Amino acid sequence: MPETTFFHEDRLFPADPVVRGIARELYASVKHLPIISPHGHTDPRWFAGNAAFENPTALLLAPDHYIFRMLYSQGIRLADLAIPDRQGVPSTDPRAAWRLFAEHYYLFRGTPSAMWLNHVLVEVFGITERLNAASADAIYDAIDVALRTEAFRPRALFDRFNIELIATTESPVDTLDHHHAIARSDWSGRVITAYRPDPVIDADHEDFFSSLEAFGEVTGEDVFNWDGYLAAHRQRRIDFMAAGATSTDHGHPTARTADLDPGESRALFDRLVSRKGREGDAELFRAQMLTEMAAMSLEDGLVMQIHPGSCRNHNGPLFDSHGRDKGADIPVPTEYVEALRPLLNRFGNEPDFGCIVFTLDETTYSRELAPLAGHYPALKLGPAWWFHDSPEGMTRFREQTTETAGFYNTVGFNDDTRAFLSIPARHDVARRVDSAFLARLVAEHRLAIDEAAELIIDLTYNLAKRAYKLDVET
Amino acid sequence: MPETTFFHEDRLFPADPVVRGIARELYASVKHLPIISPHGHTDPRWFAGNAAFENPTALLLAPDHYIFRMLYSQGIRLADLAIPDRQGVPSTDPRAAWRLFAEHYYLFRGTPSAMWLNHVLVEVFGITERLNAASADAIYDAIDVALRTEAFRPRALFDRFNIELIATTESPVDTLDHHHAIARSDWSGRVITAYRPDPVIDADHEDFFSSLEAFGEVTGEDVFNWDGYLAAHRQRRIDFMAAGATSTDHGHPTARTADLDPGESRALFDRLVSRKGREGDAELFRAQMLTEMAAMSLEDGLVMQIHPGSCRNHNGPLFDSHGRDKGADIPVPTEYVEALRPLLNRFGNEPDFGCIVFTLDETTYSRELAPLAGHYPALKLGPAWWFHDSPEGMTRFREQTTETAGFYNTVGFNDDTRAFLSIPARHDVARRVDSAFLARLVAEHRLAIDEAAELIIDLTYNLAKRAYKLDVET
Amino acid sequence: MPETTFFHEDRLFPADPVVRGIARELYASVKHLPIISPHGHTDPRWFAGNAAFENPTALLLAPDHYIFRMLYSQGIRLADLAIPDRQGVPSTDPRAAWRLFAEHYYLFRGTPSAMWLNHVLVEVFGITERLNAASADAIYDAIDVALRTEAFRPRALFDRFNIELIATTESPVDTLDHHHAIARSDWSGRVITAYRPDPVIDADHEDFFSSLEAFGEVTGEDVFNWDGYLAAHRQRRIDFMAAGATSTDHGHPTARTADLDPGESRALFDRLVSRKGREGDAELFRAQMLTEMAAMSLEDGLVMQIHPGSCRNHNGPLFDSHGRDKGADIPVPTEYVEALRPLLNRFGNEPDFGCIVFTLDETTYSRELAPLAGHYPALKLGPAWWFHDSPEGMTRFREQTTETAGFYNTVGFNDDTRAFLSIPARHDVARRVDSAFLARLVAEHRLAIDEAAELIIDLTYNLAKRAYKLDVET
Repeated sequence: MPETTFFHEDRLFPADPVVRGIARELYASVKHLPIISPHGHTDPRWFAGNAAFENPTALLLAPDHYIFRMLYSQGIRLADLAIPDRQGVPSTDPRAAWRLFAEHYYLFRGTPSAMWLNHVLVEVFGITERLNAASADAIYDAIDVALRTEAFRPRALFDRFNIELIATTESPVDTLDHHHAIARSDWSGRVITAYRPDPVIDADHEDFFSSLEAFGEVTGEDVFNWDGYLAAHRQRRIDFMAAGATSTDHGHPTARTADLDPGESRALFDRLVSRKGREGDAELFRAQMLTEMAAMSLEDGLVMQIHPGSCRNHNGPLFDSHGRDKGADIPVPTEYVEALRPLLNRFGNEPDFGCIVFTLDETTYSRELAPLAGHYPALKLGPAWWFHDSPEGMTRFREQTTETAGFYNTVGFNDDTRAFLSIPARHDVARRVDSAFLARLVAEHRLAIDEAAELIIDLTYNLAKRAYKLDVET
Repeated sequence: MPETTFFHEDRLFPADPVVRGIARELYASVKHLPIISPHGHTDPRWFAGNAAFENPTALLLAPDHYIFRMLYSQGIRLADLAIPDRQGVPSTDPRAAWRLFAEHYYLFRGTPSAMWLNHVLVEVFGITERLNAASADAIYDAIDVALRTEAFRPRALFDRFNIELIATTESPVDTLDHHHAIARSDWSGRVITAYRPDPVIDADHEDFFSSLEAFGEVTGEDVFNWDGYLAAHRQRRIDFMAAGATSTDHGHPTARTADLDPGESRALFDRLVSRKGREGDAELFRAQMLTEMAAMSLEDGLVMQIHPGSCRNHNGPLFDSHGRDKGADIPVPTEYVEALRPLLNRFGNEPDFGCIVFTLDETTYSRELAPLAGHYPALKLGPAWWFHDSPEGMTRFREQTTETAGFYNTVGFNDDTRAFLSIPARHDVARRVDSAFLARLVAEHRLAIDEAAELIIDLTYNLAKRAYKLDVET
Repeated sequence: MPETTFFHEDRLFPADPVVRGIARELYASVKHLPIISPHGHTDPRWFAGNAAFENPTALLLAPDHYIFRMLYSQGIRLADLAIPDRQGVPSTDPRAAWRLFAEHYYLFRGTPSAMWLNHVLVEVFGITERLNAASADAIYDAIDVALRTEAFRPRALFDRFNIELIATTESPVDTLDHHHAIARSDWSGRVITAYRPDPVIDADHEDFFSSLEAFGEVTGEDVFNWDGYLAAHRQRRIDFMAAGATSTDHGHPTARTADLDPGESRALFDRLVSRKGREGDAELFRAQMLTEMAAMSLEDGLVMQIHPGSCRNHNGPLFDSHGRDKGADIPVPTEYVEALRPLLNRFGNEPDFGCIVFTLDETTYSRELAPLAGHYPALKLGPAWWFHDSPEGMTRFREQTTETAGFYNTVGFNDDTRAFLSIPARHDVARRVDSAFLARLVAEHRLAIDEAAELIIDLTYNLAKRAYKLDVET
């Protein structure tokens, strides 16, 4: 690591010298462990094609809604940041966009985005200056030059980042061609997929019917018939497992599950696909499909991930002009106890079934999720997610779940990102925050140092492998 | 205390040397104060009969749902832990169950259960080894031998634990024979009861009608008539007071109260006992009965405790096989402001009426409960409860209630446990956490040291005696 | 500052010497900055007439519901504290009321009220004794003597407090005479108003119709006609701006907004003013009026403040005997994501529109408000409010909003008080808490010291001026 004044080797460790000393020691034991990234949104095309990244703005700014949402919130126009709209990428000069970002980099003080970007600048590009208006051009140039070298192509970075495994997320109509290309290549990087069937499950989605049609085409099943629809899911799950998948992922508005009898499920499906859905049918169908997916997981062993509680596309005018994923998804209060009951009463007592639940509503950590995960054999808690994937957020997660659910009903860290270069930064933050949390417990004599030493390795590495069934060689 | 490497005399004190020094000093002043246990679930039979406890597993593992729920959550079968089901106690070898527990004791890292059990092992049994697979048998034997001695019989432990008073909780159909036996005995231990009328108030309970019949038998009142039903409550409250009761306890799904006019109450009761209850009637009746109980408290002086917000028996299959209290009760969001309004508008301005409210929904501490308790003369806040009766939970309780409600609208600590041997451990944790909290305020010059010195005694001893009216000699 | 044992110069700074050292340094740079008070409830009559304050009880106890609510919660009668009821000020001897307060001052241990009052005693009156039963009379006398001097008249205190600007809050039917008198006077203190139209917007208020009539009289508009009603608002906003207003303020039960079409709005208004309102109409009208006010803000530039989520006058009997603002307003769960959507979808993308949202429901900081403010250009987060305007509350606000919204989507501190003498105390607490928060980030290498040095000045001074458009000289 180059010397800098803004990227300290003790960052994120508490100031108290005793706690910091223990945190340093714990962190040292996991700093160089390989990265397990069991849930994320990198593009498999990068690793299949291994093309050079385009330029600093296209790589670091334009795809990162954590960054451009903050700039937008302060009155900067998205077009001036080179953020694509429904007409495509604007003709903004990428260097001008970068300068605008650099001038406003002070807005990110105290945010994880700044910590991640600093990590990328220092650790990935060897830059020792802080980003600001004065340094904007020099930093742009340094990154731009680097990106044209072999060492900064996706596969080289993947290897340099010491990624043991990364999971991407694909739609049920995806051909998985990039994954097949990676598998056929002579590169040994392990890039697996995950089955995310939302497009063919969410009847409220504007593309539901076109997705269903594509689903039928890719599977050859009559997916407008309930039996054919379920068979198509089963078939695609097998395809995804062949491309390495060990998990499914479900991003629903709520955590609601249902356990209808087969006749009711069929009737509900029929109403939806014949466009005769009633009020509440789409929600009920999503709920029922979680239970159907759980049933299939019992058959094929895929671990299930439930990501509820985001109000997508809150900003109507922005959605109209720019489409999805523009920083306007806002968390809402999310209920789990009644919502998960149908699924858990059906399958929650199965120790071989794995169901990992995430939340954007931190109030549920101590009230609902830790008590549920501390009881049901099938249920595990996903790590602090999205807005809460931050030093304070991850600390709250540990403080509010550990006493009831313990550490062993959690599943390690997820980076959940499409910002490939930030992956080491994000895992580094998680390792540091967990080290700091454990160090406090040790300093307060709530945990022995040998227990903490085992735990930090479990939290960094073993729990993710175990929960996502990545330790099973296939 | 024997020397151990895992049970440090400074446990739970912050690492900072200044704060720790103050915390030590505060704690030293209350460490040896008698235990006041105004709310709990020990079995009065133990103190009446004073029989030896059976074996380590039956004493420490089988009755403690904090412990076996965690083991169950990691796929261990309850039968293998010797947990009773609806058919009774399984024939599992208690030593084998203990070994299984010991092998998995690492699951409790960072939980209060580990801290409590370590306290029991070290302080009660003088064991200096950590519990694990290797030490399981030796520890089992050491406990087993001890349990066969006079010094480990319930009364001897009660005296050794320096318990000044303990309250148990009995149903309105209980004969209170054990309490009478204790009173008649030559033992001076003060074991009082508390009136918990839920079985005859909750019309949703499967045993409501059989409980009502028993209620009629034990009181001689016509409890299927509204006036007789109320008279039966009055009679039993007097019986309970004769057995030392100073409080009632109400474990309702919600905090809802109602203030119906007498005619409406009678009609509601008539519908329920004639099995003609409408949707919502059972909830409304529970709500009305809280207000009726409050009215009786104004007459007889019993302090009222309201414990709402648990979704009982969430796990249907487990309930069917194993019954209640198997670790499957899950907290739900709980509303207090509208819910308590009818009762508080009727009786909340009475300074002589005491109503202690608990919560499993920590979001209500700063938003609802502290503002309510900082205003209504009758209302006091019960301590951090159940899942939140833990170092982090108790710290959050103080951090989130003190600034609005102060310390003097809280009521000291409740151990709320049936795990008799853990009672000193639980009170010790509370004393340490309160000492640490006050020490931080002192170190940050938010409180003078002499104020903290008074407060720690109030929080440990005086507030419980005062709030539960235990300082009134009868 | 006189020497005392209870008012330490390092109060509110963390004990850790490194963090404390940084906090001291940051605080020193803002300790003497002028006070910007953009939102509060002082009485402009004080500054217009500059009469002496009456006595210690009438000044410090009777108007401060933070103080008398706590005393009331412990069974002290309001009459004994000289708190006015609907019949007027009771004939209680003010010195007797003060003694009662002093005897019970221990109840405020750990509360911000104690910290504020200590500040007033020490810094404003130079008192070095702690308030208690023994010192009550001497302290009463010292304050009483001081109040009769010129140096303790409102304008002298305003100048001594180094208040650069204070905003009061007036009803739309207020003549603003006091503000005009201040403007005409030779005193240079800047006292501006803010437009709070709740009385003519809240059809659930008992005085709605009489307020409407007064609104018509003061404006000469036909306010029972929708167009006239809107014109009256426009007119009064201009009047208020002439009296310095840069903001409006809206204290609604919920954060709900609406965006009805003009015909619907008119019909809704017509129903309400003709007393034919349906269930939900009053709520819908408040919702629609927030959007109407936002539209006017786009025209005239007034910043909009939304203060939702208090259940007013929870204590019915107390309201009947004593009226409003007697400490019985209780926060309720408050939803923002759906509630603000209509307004934000209409105007949230306008960078020139400023909408500042407050909450009494801390669960919304990280879940709803920080994500919204970190996206919408118009939206900013008001500081920790009311019960949460406290060391722990302000710390939670920073911990739970900064990582998602950053510091620059917040607006500095509001004292929000009618307790004039506590204003320096409240700003001092905010400066200390922010210094401590930033110091921790610096010590944990999450922020550079030069960034923190800029931020503490922004949080103390610049953000308030900018967000409330007070930097625009008019």
